[in-house]
Amino acid sequence: MLDALDLAGTFVFALSGAFKAVRLRLDWLGVAVLAALTGIGGGIVRDLLLGVTPAASLRDERYVLVCLAGAAAVLVAAPRIAARWNRVMLADAVGLGLFAALGASKGLDAGLGPLGVLLTGTLTAVGGGVIRDVLVREMPAVLYKGFYATAALLGSAAFLALTAFDLPEAAALGVAVVVTTGLRVTTLVRNTQLPRAPYHPEPPDSL
Amino acid sequence: MLDALDLAGTFVFALSGAFKAVRLRLDWLGVAVLAALTGIGGGIVRDLLLGVTPAASLRDERYVLVCLAGAAAVLVAAPRIAARWNRVMLADAVGLGLFAALGASKGLDAGLGPLGVLLTGTLTAVGGGVIRDVLVREMPAVLYKGFYATAALLGSAAFLALTAFDLPEAAALGVAVVVTTGLRVTTLVRNTQLPRAPYHPEPPDSL
Amino acid sequence: MLDALDLAGTFVFALSGAFKAVRLRLDWLGVAVLAALTGIGGGIVRDLLLGVTPAASLRDERYVLVCLAGAAAVLVAAPRIAARWNRVMLADAVGLGLFAALGASKGLDAGLGPLGVLLTGTLTAVGGGVIRDVLVREMPAVLYKGFYATAALLGSAAFLALTAFDLPEAAALGVAVVVTTGLRVTTLVRNTQLPRAPYHPEPPDSL
Repeated sequence: MLDALDLAGTFVFALSGAFKAVRLRLDWLGVAVLAALTGIGGGIVRDLLLGVTPAASLRDERYVLVCLAGAAAVLVAAPRIAARWNRVMLADAVGLGLFAALGASKGLDAGLGPLGVLLTGTLTAVGGGVIRDVLVREMPAVLYKGFYATAALLGSAAFLALTAFDLPEAAALGVAVVVTTGLRVTTLVRNTQLPRAPYHPEPPDSL
Repeated sequence: MLDALDLAGTFVFALSGAFKAVRLRLDWLGVAVLAALTGIGGGIVRDLLLGVTPAASLRDERYVLVCLAGAAAVLVAAPRIAARWNRVMLADAVGLGLFAALGASKGLDAGLGPLGVLLTGTLTAVGGGVIRDVLVREMPAVLYKGFYATAALLGSAAFLALTAFDLPEAAALGVAVVVTTGLRVTTLVRNTQLPRAPYHPEPPDSL
Repeated sequence: MLDALDLAGTFVFALSGAFKAVRLRLDWLGVAVLAALTGIGGGIVRDLLLGVTPAASLRDERYVLVCLAGAAAVLVAAPRIAARWNRVMLADAVGLGLFAALGASKGLDAGLGPLGVLLTGTLTAVGGGVIRDVLVREMPAVLYKGFYATAALLGSAAFLALTAFDLPEAAALGVAVVVTTGLRVTTLVRNTQLPRAPYHPEPPDSL
């Protein structure tokens, strides 16, 4: 069940990478690469930081397969997928919640403290998107817009709080997914943004 | 023998990084850094993903030395090297084949499945170039042009297929190098490109 | 003592990330992320390359805390910090020296050769800044300006030379910090630059 959801989340994340690739008219391999890195990049970063090697998504071939399926789907049916983008966004919100909760859980299992757990949860959820944006030279979306990383962070915090109260892990995971996904969907509908920093120039490098 | 070829490939890859650095008028250290990351970056990414630490190119000092030699060569003799660029491109094609075959072999040794082996082979071959491009804010060439990553992917696939038929590893490596290098050279001469995705805008982030 | 200096260096590095974030008007989370990656990014890259997982800055929660404090400080008091930027630059130079010396020391402990030690020292010192620049799509400053990475490299070299002469590690660390910090401050005052490579175009990808 969890496995199927995780693969579904990977597929939806891969779609977003593939759409960026077709907007930029990359070649077929470029579409596949961007889809795959968006789908499995966050988990790979998490596994590298935790010392889990080879990364889970390299050991279990289904993850890459699902990403390639996402790339192929966008290559052959971009207009039809785009016409149903509301549903993709909802699935993406569920994937975000799941990735955050599973990432936080793996951080906890690795013996990290609370800040480390929040970091692994959030990084797992948003890392693939950051890699996608950096590769195609765009400012990573999570740094300046939406409530995407923040939702993942708060979901990871919910997981952390619940396990601290000895809730069984399955329940904590479930609540964490609901928190992240709920926040993401609500803030999408209301177009909520985190406050932006007031502008200040960078001081010059001189003495 | 394999070792000498591997070092030669690293040297040629470093040349491409150094040329990008002199085009951008980086300082001497920038030229050395870009040469080194292009030369050893792919192998480092592979080793990180497979959990081989410290990375091979950090344990064997010859790799970094050879990259620094490449940087120095471009700093003192860029026009003369550029005048013989055909030969450099041929050597680069051999390096590409070798890196892909050795990367695929290490992925297989680490117990990865077929997709994982293809990924480690291709990443080893093109990872350094991607790091080079991202650092200097260019779209990674492998995402949209040429038949570079595709040649590495097909060479990795040849390696995988031959070892599946119990061919001795040395023979499989040799054939894989010939496949990648042959494809790269042929497609360079003919200017073959992978098909590009038809344009489609990215759907907006909203519900 | 060393610990307190290391945390202070992390704080100052985080300030530079946070200032870049406020110049770009990222949101609060973006400011925190950029501050954290600048502060702990170099150490994380080093730990990944050496196979130290989970990375030290994830196991010791104080590092991330100190980065968040740097982000908060810039969010609430950017003008006052900028008005004292001379002092921040001096602290940054000490942090640079400390990170380089500690990085070189960890590379030596991991059994690397001289070039590997120089690389880990320099990467620890400048890695966070490179990640910061790449994330916001700027050419990494260390590739083309100032005497920043070079100071870290020479400090790492001093550490290496002194330990080769069997100086106690504490003394070698101290001298290395003084070398890096002294070079950085002197070159800042004199605006010393490494020579830049003479321009040469990149040869085309064709045969």
